[in-house]
Amino acid sequence: MQRILNNNTPKYVGKKVRICGWVNSLRHHGGIVFLDLRDCSGILQVVLTPDLAKGIKEEYVLEIEGQIQKRPNKMVNPELETGEIELKAEVIKILAEAATLPFNLKDLKVSLPVLLDWRPLTLRNKKIRAIFKIQEEVVSSFRKTLKDLGFTEFQAPTIVASATEGGAELFPIKYYKYNAYLAQSPQLYKQILVSVFERVFTVTRAYRAEPSITTRHISEYISLDAEMGFISSWEELMDVCETVTKNIFRDIQENCQRELKMFNVKLPQLTEKIPRLKMREAQEIIFKRTGRDNRKKIDLEPEDEKDICLWAKEKHGSELIFITHFPTKKRPFYTYPDPEDENYTLSFDLLCRGLEIVTGSQRIHEYEKLLKNIKKFGLTPKTFQFYLQAFKYGMPPEGGFCMGCERMVKQILNLENIKEASLFPRDMERIDQRLSLLQPRTRASGTVWGKPKKTPTLPPPSRRRRAPKKSIKK
Amino acid sequence: MQRILNNNTPKYVGKKVRICGWVNSLRHHGGIVFLDLRDCSGILQVVLTPDLAKGIKEEYVLEIEGQIQKRPNKMVNPELETGEIELKAEVIKILAEAATLPFNLKDLKVSLPVLLDWRPLTLRNKKIRAIFKIQEEVVSSFRKTLKDLGFTEFQAPTIVASATEGGAELFPIKYYKYNAYLAQSPQLYKQILVSVFERVFTVTRAYRAEPSITTRHISEYISLDAEMGFISSWEELMDVCETVTKNIFRDIQENCQRELKMFNVKLPQLTEKIPRLKMREAQEIIFKRTGRDNRKKIDLEPEDEKDICLWAKEKHGSELIFITHFPTKKRPFYTYPDPEDENYTLSFDLLCRGLEIVTGSQRIHEYEKLLKNIKKFGLTPKTFQFYLQAFKYGMPPEGGFCMGCERMVKQILNLENIKEASLFPRDMERIDQRLSLLQPRTRASGTVWGKPKKTPTLPPPSRRRRAPKKSIKK
Repeated sequence: MQRILNNNTPKYVGKKVRICGWVNSLRHHGGIVFLDLRDCSGILQVVLTPDLAKGIKEEYVLEIEGQIQKRPNKMVNPELETGEIELKAEVIKILAEAATLPFNLKDLKVSLPVLLDWRPLTLRNKKIRAIFKIQEEVVSSFRKTLKDLGFTEFQAPTIVASATEGGAELFPIKYYKYNAYLAQSPQLYKQILVSVFERVFTVTRAYRAEPSITTRHISEYISLDAEMGFISSWEELMDVCETVTKNIFRDIQENCQRELKMFNVKLPQLTEKIPRLKMREAQEIIFKRTGRDNRKKIDLEPEDEKDICLWAKEKHGSELIFITHFPTKKRPFYTYPDPEDENYTLSFDLLCRGLEIVTGSQRIHEYEKLLKNIKKFGLTPKTFQFYLQAFKYGMPPEGGFCMGCERMVKQILNLENIKEASLFPRDMERIDQRLSLLQPRTRASGTVWGKPKKTPTLPPPSRRRRAPKKSIKK
Repeated sequence: MQRILNNNTPKYVGKKVRICGWVNSLRHHGGIVFLDLRDCSGILQVVLTPDLAKGIKEEYVLEIEGQIQKRPNKMVNPELETGEIELKAEVIKILAEAATLPFNLKDLKVSLPVLLDWRPLTLRNKKIRAIFKIQEEVVSSFRKTLKDLGFTEFQAPTIVASATEGGAELFPIKYYKYNAYLAQSPQLYKQILVSVFERVFTVTRAYRAEPSITTRHISEYISLDAEMGFISSWEELMDVCETVTKNIFRDIQENCQRELKMFNVKLPQLTEKIPRLKMREAQEIIFKRTGRDNRKKIDLEPEDEKDICLWAKEKHGSELIFITHFPTKKRPFYTYPDPEDENYTLSFDLLCRGLEIVTGSQRIHEYEKLLKNIKKFGLTPKTFQFYLQAFKYGMPPEGGFCMGCERMVKQILNLENIKEASLFPRDMERIDQRLSLLQPRTRASGTVWGKPKKTPTLPPPSRRRRAPKKSIKK
């Protein structure tokens, strides 16, 4: 008999079926046992005799044959897709046993470290699992919108020979006889590919050796990157970004009803057009609202992001806002300066519920201008030779943006910590398990790597020599 | 006026349009100039006066306004989608200039190192670009088939704390105060996720510090990974793999006609069912055919893979063949032993035109058995604690496979070297540019890393201390 999935069983009332799954719960009621069997499609109630249930415990993996029958009226569970039926078990086969659970998996109440220490197990909780159904939908919607807009999908490399944006924290790799690093972003590659395919996107890994623990950072994250040529103006980039974002919300609304309900959340409130505000204007508004004077700062502080989002919601009814025109000093070398004031750039961030989820800009596409800017930023043109080819031989006006996938999921579900939105989050102290437990000797002796010598031709990653300062900020 | 793409222009005969793109070629014919403008959709012939063409060179980026007109009959080009029309240019705006090309880009005849040294430029060649349209289709078809079969897509982490399969070549990362490595495969994560979603797949990066240069290896590759639980038999894995593969060929046939034509290739010949052969049987056949006696070897040699594919084509009319039952010694610790002979495993490779493109197997899902095998393989259970959780708390019978994306593309297009099938291939000597040119001092001084100390709890990557031996094999 072919196995069927639990969500298909309502079609089989009165018929014999074979189902497979994990024991979600077991309830003994005198001469009868109720067993909830969980598979990838949902839960099905199984009724069985105490004899058949003998030895079976939670999380056992079972194959059950039996007959689908209507439940008595008073036993109907409207919360469950299969709530009107149940399976009367005839034959049970144990496919795998399970050890006694270390905590209540259905009603999970554990701290973040425990949640992550036990990740393979805690992912079985339906609410935790739901987070990654949302993540899957974010990625799939991102791809779909861009393909529909004529973008070509490419696979970005993640091993790079030098820092792409200079300065930010890099993970060094021992690459055969050479030095290499983990890519902080696919930035330079997606730009190169504009000169080949015009419009490109990638779903890739990006890495930041951020030496601090916050609720907003992870060391390895999913970067949703898009880049497009022949833009008519830099505002077209925000238009595309807005379409992508709205479609993500729409697709989640349509395809993830059940998941949203578990978290009791609504998707971020939107208006017809997401408000756009210059960074300096935002700082002015924040100063007036809160008295906090950050008007001279060259970037928004985390607090500012929260306050300006509150303002946008009150003033415009939008939980998203574009902040534009960040200072030249604060943006990478390839960012296009604002022709009206070269101290600022044609750049933008998209904030959602108090957190930056997208960053983008028009890029410098003129070869000579780009070369000049590389030098101006104290970087070595030689390291960018490969990248510069794309510009030397004709690059149209272009720009793009990247969206942090985990941040997007975090904000949609109002999760407290970004690590909850990553299947297997990596941070200063953790790769799956806590590193201090895995590599105790390494930790005690400081470093196993010895001091790396300086490579003269590469811009050295700024914090490579300093011991990472650990700080906890929210 | 809104810009339109070249492949849309045939609809605009008699109308004014605006187009954008790169100068693919320029031909002066006395008082008239023919310019082929290339955009992401194809080529359009533009006719213009020598005056308008002044200063314009190949690869300049132009915006052209003018009128679409029918070509004179004798000028029709049936090879071109826009071959019946042309644009009579009225206004030309130079969006970007281009330096003089270092080689003929349209009729590209360069060695592999030059092809890669100039990758941003050589990708503009239509045949080179076509390779990555095929790649995009492979990835997208892989995803579509598996989603249709109820698989959940996940994003695999690529930084790992230890070797997943023990022994194979790893790239070490300096991870804050700890040691880490680049993942050789998402194997352990996809297995963990079977206990959560039952059926999962991922498109991810995998890394092999292969200290040799062959036509079949790159250091960073695209791994198309699938894993499924509740299998009825290990042969079901081959069935799914076969469906995925056949759908890839079907989708490329349907959607990449133009690209296939450029390479003058046909998709691999298939029969209704891909033949399946035990490794020992294959060796026997090879011995009989060629006299080469590899019957005692524990794996197929590259030569064997070629010969057995020739045999399958002659005997069965199939350019693909499954080889099964590889020796236990040759497969990783999680591979299920064949109950009929524990010296062999329930494993398979899919060969295509002489090269392995997929590898897969049933896995050991029983906790105690897996633990025992980890020890038997000389590995440390402690390093697998996290992974083992998934098995300790109930894992159904499961298995999966991974497909090398670049190998698949290489075999479809009959490319000589796998590096041609990677946008930005990384190997022993190259990350974009030749490393010996980028980091000359590093090379001269041997290593900048110092000797890594041994970490006691982790299985040390086998060749970490040895200097990589460089060898060229085909």
